[in-house]
Amino acid sequence: MIKEFREHRSYRKYGDRPVEEEVLRDILSAGTRASTCGNMQLYSMVVTRTPEVKQELLPCHFGQPMVTQAPVVITFCADTHRFAAWCRQRGAEPGYDNFMWFVNGVVDAMLAAENVATQAEAHGLGVCFLGTTLYTADRIIEVLHLPEGVVPVTTVVMGYPDGEVPLTDRLPLEAVVHEERYREYTPESIDRFWAEKEALPETQRLLEENGLPNLARIFTERRYTAADGVTFSKALLAVLEKQRFWNH
Amino acid sequence: MIKEFREHRSYRKYGDRPVEEEVLRDILSAGTRASTCGNMQLYSMVVTRTPEVKQELLPCHFGQPMVTQAPVVITFCADTHRFAAWCRQRGAEPGYDNFMWFVNGVVDAMLAAENVATQAEAHGLGVCFLGTTLYTADRIIEVLHLPEGVVPVTTVVMGYPDGEVPLTDRLPLEAVVHEERYREYTPESIDRFWAEKEALPETQRLLEENGLPNLARIFTERRYTAADGVTFSKALLAVLEKQRFWNH
Repeated sequence: MIKEFREHRSYRKYGDRPVEEEVLRDILSAGTRASTCGNMQLYSMVVTRTPEVKQELLPCHFGQPMVTQAPVVITFCADTHRFAAWCRQRGAEPGYDNFMWFVNGVVDAMLAAENVATQAEAHGLGVCFLGTTLYTADRIIEVLHLPEGVVPVTTVVMGYPDGEVPLTDRLPLEAVVHEERYREYTPESIDRFWAEKEALPETQRLLEENGLPNLARIFTERRYTAADGVTFSKALLAVLEKQRFWNH
Repeated sequence: MIKEFREHRSYRKYGDRPVEEEVLRDILSAGTRASTCGNMQLYSMVVTRTPEVKQELLPCHFGQPMVTQAPVVITFCADTHRFAAWCRQRGAEPGYDNFMWFVNGVVDAMLAAENVATQAEAHGLGVCFLGTTLYTADRIIEVLHLPEGVVPVTTVVMGYPDGEVPLTDRLPLEAVVHEERYREYTPESIDRFWAEKEALPETQRLLEENGLPNLARIFTERRYTAADGVTFSKALLAVLEKQRFWNH
C-alpha cells in the first residue's frame, strides 16, 4: 500500500518550521490532478497563513488550537461561482444554482482535498481534517468573503509535526465492503465488527471519563447528539439557500 | 509530486486481465485509511463484479459501456446505517437521520474513494469516476438493496487499461487557489484562466460537432442544462427523504 495511506494519521501539533512555497505549490497542484465532474473543477482552495485571518477562523472551528498553530490552513469549498462567471462572460446561461450542483461541488472538493492531504504527507507534513467547517459554514463564508455559489465543506490544517502520534483503529475491511449488493448487518456481525474498537484501552478510558456504559452512548450523548444534528442541518440548509443552491 | 497524481487520467477501456483478489483487497484497504468524521467511517463500498449485477447497474449509468466492461465496479455510499445499527444494539439512540449527516457521509465516502482510485493506479489499474451515480441514486438503491441511511454518491470503475489515453487539461493553479480570503474574479482573470482550455484542438472539434460558438454554451446547452439540474435535484432530495436524511 502507498506509504502515505498506510501511515496516515491526524496530527494536531506542529513545529515551528514553515511550509516552503514550492512544497505548498506542489501540494495544491496535486489537488488539481483529481478527477472532477465534467472536468469543471467545481471547488476552490482558500489558503490561510496570516495570524489575523487564522484568528478569525478559530471560533468557526470551536477554538481548536490547530487552526492558529498550524502554519497552513486550507478551506476546501464547493464552488460553481467561477464556472458560472465564465459561462455568463461567454453569453451562456449557467443552471448550477440547484441542490445537485452543491453535491457535485462537494464531491469535486473532497477528491481534491484527499489528494492535497496525501501529497502533504508525502512531503513529511502532518495534516488534520476539521469537520467543524460544515457546522459553521455561515460564519466561514463571512470570514473568507465567499460569494454566492461557494460553500466551505472541509478544512485541512497542516505543518511539520511536533512529535509522534499513534495510528488510529479502523473497522475490519469486511465491515465496510459489500460484495455485489448491500448485505444487511446482523446482531452478530455488528458485535464482531466493533469488538476490537470496544476493547481498546482508549475506549475504556473514555467510558470512565464520561461515566457512560458504552462507546455508542458517548457518540450519541456527548459527541454527536441528535439535537446538534438538527441544528446544524437547519443552518447548513439556510447556507445553501443563501449561497444560491436551492433553485428547484 | 506522487506519480499517481501526476499521471492521473480517466480510463474507459480495459483489457481482459482480471483484478487479483489481493490487489483488490489492498485497494479497498487504502480507502479505509482515509480520515472520517469522528473515525465513524460513514461510508460503504459495494464491489460489483458479476455480469448480472453490472448489467442491472448499466442503465443507472446511462448505458456507459465501462460499467459492464470494467472487471470491478465500486459504488461509494454515504452510510450512517451501520453506525446507527451499532448504536441501537448498545441501547444508544442515534440522531443521524438529518441532512448534516448525509453531507458528513458524502465527505467520508469521497475521501475514501480518492484513496481507492489512487491505490488502484499504484497497482497499474486505470480508473474512471461516474458522476451519474447521484442522478439515478433512486434506481441504484433498488439494484444494490441499499437500506435507509445509505445513499450512493459516486462510482469508480477500474481495470487494467487497454491502450493509452492522454492527460486532460486543468485550469491554472491560480484559478482555483485563493490567498487568505476569496478573491473575486474579474473579466480579465476569467479570460486568462480559460484561455488554454478554449484554445485546445479538442475544444475546436467540440464546437464544430455541436455547432455552437463557444465551449461554455456546450456545457450549459448540451452537457449540463438547468432543466436537468432541477430534475436531478428533485430526485436526489426525494432520495434523501426516502433514505431518512430529512428529519429536521
